[in-house]
Amino acid sequence: MSRNDVTLSGVVTELEPLRYTPAGIPLLTFRLTHQSRQVEASQERSVSLDLPVMVLGDLAREMAGLTPESNVAVRGFLARRSLKSLSVVLHATAYKLEME
Amino acid sequence: MSRNDVTLSGVVTELEPLRYTPAGIPLLTFRLTHQSRQVEASQERSVSLDLPVMVLGDLAREMAGLTPESNVAVRGFLARRSLKSLSVVLHATAYKLEME
Repeated sequence: MSRNDVTLSGVVTELEPLRYTPAGIPLLTFRLTHQSRQVEASQERSVSLDLPVMVLGDLAREMAGLTPESNVAVRGFLARRSLKSLSVVLHATAYKLEME
Repeated sequence: MSRNDVTLSGVVTELEPLRYTPAGIPLLTFRLTHQSRQVEASQERSVSLDLPVMVLGDLAREMAGLTPESNVAVRGFLARRSLKSLSVVLHATAYKLEME
């Protein structure tokens, strides 16, 4: 079975106002700024990352109320930004507010 | 707690020969070509994605024996390709061969 599951926590930055697709579906975009320590080949390392996030539908409406700089954990899947693009976007399908 | 968990399945492409870091740690790189259908805002959509993967240590040695075009599910974390880069790499910490 094909898997594409991501859970990424971080700080909400560049939170744009809610907008709508041409089909009238709510659309929200922001960036998730992540920092953590990860273990790789038995060695701990620091990881930092800044990923664009896209949210559609009712979840977009809900997340539009987030305070910028909120700490959240986003669950979703990765996709190309556009057909011609090599860069990736995290499509959020669920989220949770995190304690700092 | 900070989360950075990815499980992505796909086809192994551009599998490079095993090499070693300056510190002598085995290093393997390839690309994972992913296709799936995902549900977003109650609508099914097709997703395709091609992500660079990096593997270090014993796992790199093990995965170096993969047949190109193998179907695998890779588990790991996302990180920036380099300090100055905005593009992301999936660091594999585990994998599983998948049936086609």
